[in-house]
Amino acid sequence: MTNTDYLIIGGSAAGLAAGITARQYYPDSSITLIRKEENVVIPCGIPYIFGTLDSPDQNLIPDAPLHNNDIDLVIDKVEDIDKEEKCVKTSSGEVFSYNKLIIATGSSPLEIPIPGVDLENVFTVEKDLDHLNKMLDAVEEATDVVVIGGGFMGLEFADECNKQDDTNVTVVERLPNVLQLACDEVISDKVEAKLMEHGVNVLTNTEVKEINGDESVESVSIGSGDVLDADVVIMGIGVKPSVDLARSAGLKTSGKHGIWVDDFMRTSDEHVFAAGDCAGKRGYPSGEARAVRLASVATTEARVAATNLGGIRQRMEYPIGIFSTKFGDLAVGAAGQTEKDARKLGIDILTTEASACDRHPGKLPECTELGVKLIFAKDTGLIIGGQAYGGSSIGEMINFIGALIQHKMRADEIFTFQMGTHPLLTASPVAYQLTSAAQKAAAELSNSRR
Amino acid sequence: MTNTDYLIIGGSAAGLAAGITARQYYPDSSITLIRKEENVVIPCGIPYIFGTLDSPDQNLIPDAPLHNNDIDLVIDKVEDIDKEEKCVKTSSGEVFSYNKLIIATGSSPLEIPIPGVDLENVFTVEKDLDHLNKMLDAVEEATDVVVIGGGFMGLEFADECNKQDDTNVTVVERLPNVLQLACDEVISDKVEAKLMEHGVNVLTNTEVKEINGDESVESVSIGSGDVLDADVVIMGIGVKPSVDLARSAGLKTSGKHGIWVDDFMRTSDEHVFAAGDCAGKRGYPSGEARAVRLASVATTEARVAATNLGGIRQRMEYPIGIFSTKFGDLAVGAAGQTEKDARKLGIDILTTEASACDRHPGKLPECTELGVKLIFAKDTGLIIGGQAYGGSSIGEMINFIGALIQHKMRADEIFTFQMGTHPLLTASPVAYQLTSAAQKAAAELSNSRR
Repeated sequence: MTNTDYLIIGGSAAGLAAGITARQYYPDSSITLIRKEENVVIPCGIPYIFGTLDSPDQNLIPDAPLHNNDIDLVIDKVEDIDKEEKCVKTSSGEVFSYNKLIIATGSSPLEIPIPGVDLENVFTVEKDLDHLNKMLDAVEEATDVVVIGGGFMGLEFADECNKQDDTNVTVVERLPNVLQLACDEVISDKVEAKLMEHGVNVLTNTEVKEINGDESVESVSIGSGDVLDADVVIMGIGVKPSVDLARSAGLKTSGKHGIWVDDFMRTSDEHVFAAGDCAGKRGYPSGEARAVRLASVATTEARVAATNLGGIRQRMEYPIGIFSTKFGDLAVGAAGQTEKDARKLGIDILTTEASACDRHPGKLPECTELGVKLIFAKDTGLIIGGQAYGGSSIGEMINFIGALIQHKMRADEIFTFQMGTHPLLTASPVAYQLTSAAQKAAAELSNSRR
Repeated sequence: MTNTDYLIIGGSAAGLAAGITARQYYPDSSITLIRKEENVVIPCGIPYIFGTLDSPDQNLIPDAPLHNNDIDLVIDKVEDIDKEEKCVKTSSGEVFSYNKLIIATGSSPLEIPIPGVDLENVFTVEKDLDHLNKMLDAVEEATDVVVIGGGFMGLEFADECNKQDDTNVTVVERLPNVLQLACDEVISDKVEAKLMEHGVNVLTNTEVKEINGDESVESVSIGSGDVLDADVVIMGIGVKPSVDLARSAGLKTSGKHGIWVDDFMRTSDEHVFAAGDCAGKRGYPSGEARAVRLASVATTEARVAATNLGGIRQRMEYPIGIFSTKFGDLAVGAAGQTEKDARKLGIDILTTEASACDRHPGKLPECTELGVKLIFAKDTGLIIGGQAYGGSSIGEMINFIGALIQHKMRADEIFTFQMGTHPLLTASPVAYQLTSAAQKAAAELSNSRR
């Protein structure tokens, strides 16, 4: 039996972040991380294996941070957690006892009950190197690829597969718009147009009825009655938390929501924490269960969990959800509530938009239009959501908007915010998109109260 | 006599932002903007006239926002403000009466008493089209350009002039590092190296003794005893507030600090506001006078002033100062206190750094190293400063850091901040620079208290 102070199960983003954090907060402790994969795939990087990167091997999480932080790495599969004895048993028969345990077992692809999902060359997206190599071979040989699901992962797959020579790609999305769970039309419309400009066929408001073929997939039947040719089908419809291990151990779990955790990321056993896709989440702003299964949220939860290993120091806030992606020269981002969702929740809102070049003067080369849409609660003036489109600066711009939401800023505080501006890096200070959009909201809210 | 509700003097960033804001908050008012220039130069864009842009005409503030916001534009020079009668008189003999007045007269270049400053082809940087055209002609013909001052404007001039064929450029800076008033060595060293890589000669710790020549400049004598060849000298050493008009009107002013204003941007006369470079400033965090004369601060002040025209609604916070710039592929930014300044103020601080690629995996093309340095007050854990270097996302990254400072976030709040990450737009969630640097600080602060 190996004794360790802090044991982590899972080596993806959450497990790794938990290990690094535990080392920083508990410099003298022994930390062990057990994972089943020899090599760990970067989850968000998977679509880029199919176009931009040369092979799955280029999309691996390095082990250097584990070694640099003196974390014992064990490649093995945990079969059982004994929470009374505070130990785990692995496939190879090893036993590891712990003082505290963090479960970071992640998630696996959702399966939908469409006839034909078991045909050859119908792929879910597994974070597994062999699976991805097989999938890549199939895509490289395919003439027609159908992606089911127009969320972030589905669209990224579509845009990347479309970079293969002589490959036709179609995305099929059940909802009226792509990215609908995270964005309003201001973003969805631009993304749909950009993908179509790239030659991707985007079908929204479209149900998949059946996947057809003999041994291997040959076509996909959709709601309109049309049949789409398909040598490869990729299911990009989301993930479900991996809770089997936790459930067998007697921890409180839900197959849909994940392992139950409190605000400190503790499970129903005070010595066991959970973090990442396997852990339950409560959504901003209402606190109801919401599946924000993002690597960024996973690492935040892992940091909170690891900080609390030696005593409660940190609380996990409701994930507001900060998304970003890029298709060709168009980057988009979203944070917090969409207009649609806020209205559904019954929040009385005000939305404003502003756009301008991302350099000034506009005569400078490489100017790209950057636009934002901000969503405010009318009664308080608080920002509750924001979306942005533009060039490569969108990744940080949406984090900036996320900070405003998380820190509960009002429209009048944002419009008098002292942003920095520079000709080569941002819009002019007069036209700066965030302050301009906030100013419209602040003026309208202020005048409506006079 | 023309009667107007709200009169604005000055048509640069502050005047324009004041006009737009006044229109949004006071939709039914009459607004008049008087400026002396037919065309208004974009101040921050001036250096780019000398390399990246084709001519000064490409660097003008458009008048469309004035027309679109129904603001009466008068091209004329205000000679006198009569604050008892609440009216102004112009060079052409016109009289405009106002209900409230905003003075946004800006600044003019500082002059330093070096022998030879009056020689031909020794230029200060005036926001004037004729002056800039003359300066551009001289630079285009020059073989040797010497820039005095290694602040943002000076370095931008140097890097741009260096893009002219067969032109040697030298920057002379009195202090030990370039950008020293805004940045620590982590930034200054990288900028100096980048400029030298571009072929710019950077001399720090170097005093200018004399500018030599007969009619036109021929050389510059520096402290070491060396003499630098020079056909053109550019003085990039800062600005002084333009307060003559306000002083003549009997408003409280200081030649160094500018027109005195309260926290609502009101001058010593309750009907007169001032905003932008001409207005006095108090610096973050101590509130002492500090010359943060940036277009971004100017527009924030203008927004506050204009919002308050019809009654006090907004307070101006101390400008923390958010700077950014770019030299070739290196962008840098700084916000709040530097380590040096914080130590000078006697603040007990903790600094941490983190760097990573700005994409993930690092095998993706176009990866650029992005690094941050964060400065925390030890007793409270509050972030009081931050600096960053990297690619084009630095413009928004430093605004993000600025938001954290302005909103008084602690290290532990930043390290558990839910940033969004994306392979093509940011570092990985495990390596994300801001959270990583904050985590080091949070762990150290937390452990030091146990």
